[in-house]
Amino acid sequence: MSGGAGALLATMGALGLAPSAEASAKGAFAPPQPTDFSLTGRSANRVVILGAGIAGLATAYELGKAGYDCTILEALDRVGGRNWTIRGGDRVLELNHSFQVAKFSDGIYFNAGPTRLAQWMVTMDYCRELGVDLEIFTNSNAQAYIYHQHVGAPVRWRTAKADMYGYVAELLSRATDAGALDAALTAQDKERLIAFLSSFGAVGNKASGFRYTGTPRRGYSVNPGAGDQPGTVLGPVPSLSEVLASGVGQWFEFEHGYEQAMLMFHPVGGMDMIPRAFAARIGPERILLRSKVTKITNLQDGVEVEYRDHYGTTRKISADLCVAAMPPHILAKTAHNLGAEVQAALATPTVVNAGKIGLEYNRRWWELDEDIYGGITATDLDLTQILYPSYGYGSARGLVVGYYNFDAQANAYAALTSPERERRAIEQGIKIHGAKYRDELATSVSVAWNLQPNIEGAWVSWPSRQGAYQLLNKPAGHVYFAGDWLSHMIAWQSGALESARKVVMGLHQRVMNAN
Amino acid sequence: MSGGAGALLATMGALGLAPSAEASAKGAFAPPQPTDFSLTGRSANRVVILGAGIAGLATAYELGKAGYDCTILEALDRVGGRNWTIRGGDRVLELNHSFQVAKFSDGIYFNAGPTRLAQWMVTMDYCRELGVDLEIFTNSNAQAYIYHQHVGAPVRWRTAKADMYGYVAELLSRATDAGALDAALTAQDKERLIAFLSSFGAVGNKASGFRYTGTPRRGYSVNPGAGDQPGTVLGPVPSLSEVLASGVGQWFEFEHGYEQAMLMFHPVGGMDMIPRAFAARIGPERILLRSKVTKITNLQDGVEVEYRDHYGTTRKISADLCVAAMPPHILAKTAHNLGAEVQAALATPTVVNAGKIGLEYNRRWWELDEDIYGGITATDLDLTQILYPSYGYGSARGLVVGYYNFDAQANAYAALTSPERERRAIEQGIKIHGAKYRDELATSVSVAWNLQPNIEGAWVSWPSRQGAYQLLNKPAGHVYFAGDWLSHMIAWQSGALESARKVVMGLHQRVMNAN
Repeated sequence: MSGGAGALLATMGALGLAPSAEASAKGAFAPPQPTDFSLTGRSANRVVILGAGIAGLATAYELGKAGYDCTILEALDRVGGRNWTIRGGDRVLELNHSFQVAKFSDGIYFNAGPTRLAQWMVTMDYCRELGVDLEIFTNSNAQAYIYHQHVGAPVRWRTAKADMYGYVAELLSRATDAGALDAALTAQDKERLIAFLSSFGAVGNKASGFRYTGTPRRGYSVNPGAGDQPGTVLGPVPSLSEVLASGVGQWFEFEHGYEQAMLMFHPVGGMDMIPRAFAARIGPERILLRSKVTKITNLQDGVEVEYRDHYGTTRKISADLCVAAMPPHILAKTAHNLGAEVQAALATPTVVNAGKIGLEYNRRWWELDEDIYGGITATDLDLTQILYPSYGYGSARGLVVGYYNFDAQANAYAALTSPERERRAIEQGIKIHGAKYRDELATSVSVAWNLQPNIEGAWVSWPSRQGAYQLLNKPAGHVYFAGDWLSHMIAWQSGALESARKVVMGLHQRVMNAN
Repeated sequence: MSGGAGALLATMGALGLAPSAEASAKGAFAPPQPTDFSLTGRSANRVVILGAGIAGLATAYELGKAGYDCTILEALDRVGGRNWTIRGGDRVLELNHSFQVAKFSDGIYFNAGPTRLAQWMVTMDYCRELGVDLEIFTNSNAQAYIYHQHVGAPVRWRTAKADMYGYVAELLSRATDAGALDAALTAQDKERLIAFLSSFGAVGNKASGFRYTGTPRRGYSVNPGAGDQPGTVLGPVPSLSEVLASGVGQWFEFEHGYEQAMLMFHPVGGMDMIPRAFAARIGPERILLRSKVTKITNLQDGVEVEYRDHYGTTRKISADLCVAAMPPHILAKTAHNLGAEVQAALATPTVVNAGKIGLEYNRRWWELDEDIYGGITATDLDLTQILYPSYGYGSARGLVVGYYNFDAQANAYAALTSPERERRAIEQGIKIHGAKYRDELATSVSVAWNLQPNIEGAWVSWPSRQGAYQLLNKPAGHVYFAGDWLSHMIAWQSGALESARKVVMGLHQRVMNAN
């Protein structure tokens, strides 16, 4: 290494390169230990946890490590909350009384809720710790499409990128070479920038005016083959104006996001492998399903929670401490004595709706006919996006997510019956994939998150991270709050996990200090 | 759809959007059918195939479908040729008499040869047909590094891209806004371009001079978390000059290549699942291992091939036709009567060397310490690149490819003993990953392809696709030639498969015409 360590380190600093810092980007977490009690003569507390979603499960799991006596009350007949994987035979009941029974084939699953994990998220660590096998979630695929209605035909991501990057490189090379950026660039900068753009955009040299005239990166109409078949690059190349007017470039930023950039992951066999693994470690006997919380009472020296059990009987459970790991808008509809300020805070965030439909096909036509093995087609249709499956490549059948949309578009589908949702999703998807999109459909299941009992929304949005958010990030008497909604990673399981860990650390510290 | 079908189609044409054409980009192939013989009273021919690499195996498999009586002669003690997966207990013998026995743990494998498949390649179809399960090969990962020696510290791909794209967006926005490109852009083009650049580069608005000042896309030094932890974006942001001088942008084009853009795939359990599946379908009794071809004689009405069997005995096999699916430089060293022109043609292509080392580690430190779950770190070191494993995420042990290099760099490693290769690869890798790269190493195996008996190279390069290439793409008497070296996809299994299919079609047509 030349230049001396000092110069080197200075360069590293200037470039913001700090791999050791990056490596430790995760928040610190010290899980409670059994010895915290056994070695100090303290007694582990009894904790009642409201909700067996990811935050509630993680809370019980981490507290359980130290011997806390945890009980989870869960209104649904399953663990996981929004982490919900639907398989053949599963029932989907909505608040408008619509009712679907999934007719998916064996081996087919539909992640109706969270669908992906980023590598840096703590969810990855829990999968390792819990023995949940991971595989790649195909969040981006050069071979998938971008479809804009005014263009009228899908274009593959690879083609869209080749053209947009090609023209960007052409334009910036010309401007740079013409001296338009001399105020910002040294002669050496200019040389290096033009060299970069040449490879980035696959454009011509200076003599050719840095022209973009297409590139094999667009794809081929006839693939390279044997003998005298060099392949035919897809053409003709659209003009710069046409590429800009198509609007395809608006989607590229998705692939660069800290949360969304590949590689992304998901559990083998369905996202609910995570809550199932948590539940197995916690012990099923500690999780009371179909037990809906009806009243939370903070007491002088503990907490009492009323719930309706699976026979419809109202019961009470007492504990030293409570962790309310339910959605804020559901908590806000639950009787409690936590005060008006807490009640106002719980009602503060806005509930966001989202919807999904799982379409099972008899044939993996996306692979067989279009060479698309996973990934996402982005659209300006009301279905927003189509997700091709990240498992079962090359097998007989498969499940496509026919829409995953939000807000107004999710509300529009939520207002329909499930057959109507299917029909609408299919009518839209046909524009991209043709008649097989309807003709080869086997069955479907759709979920509107605002209509899911005891959940009633996909996630929430805070008007600010002051006030209500800060209040609920502190305990109200003996009641703590946990969930992705109390993190800076809303709608991510990692947000729920980080929130649970924060509550576990705070609660345990309090117990240690008090005993 | 507004504007009428005519306008729509015109737009599609202009944009080069032809999904139906793309869908049929694969070369046509009509495999021989059993009925071709049984229904016409013709007799299936006897074919001897030289080499049980991918081309030889595919030839035997496809001809076998129609009842051809095929025999494969293979010099090695395994099928697959360069498709070679090394597991614990496997031996690696090189032409310089060096000898390694792989000590890899159970479940660990090392693909010493081909490592990835693109979705559009015919290899994907053979995997489906043969029942070979596929999973993602992690060819790109935003979380992996780019390491340049003069920079002195690794930078993650996501950080490198955020900065380079940010400055490109800033510069082009400014030039566009200042009118430097008015000759090329309409007012509407300019507006659309600046809107694209704003999202592409995450740059400021016009009032802020379109300044790039960093973005969460760079990554975080402290990740977003729960409560009051919004996360700390990695900084400081290097200057434009520093980013250009770092040279990180030179690697970006890799991700856009038609052959290399994600999503990429590989067989579950090792690349040799493909040749193993071929061999099982062909019938092991038809594949004579350790049978080295010593002479090829084209006869008036057939062909005779001499080979040395696994006892060292010279034997002869007669057939109607022969498919020589060996590397051209090995064929050129084999006695034959195919004439001086064929001999000159076989000696025409240049042999390219490549090398790889598989490093098994006791601990998946790349996942645990650096949140890197797969992908490739690009470097300007002589190791060229480091590949993190695309299988076994979250498990105990794992195998990193410590170098995969070519030409002079491969030759440099080939000249070393295997312990020396390991030492050199480790010394380089430490610069990126620190001392654990040495301290936690369990075992390694290295392969220099120019030293592999009966293969003697990674692939070949043609000076031109005229002359010799064209000659060998035609049969010499009763002898056909097949291999990736006779395709426009050299070094890809799909090239070997396409070549085999071409030969199978030509050979079968000849037999059908002759009978």
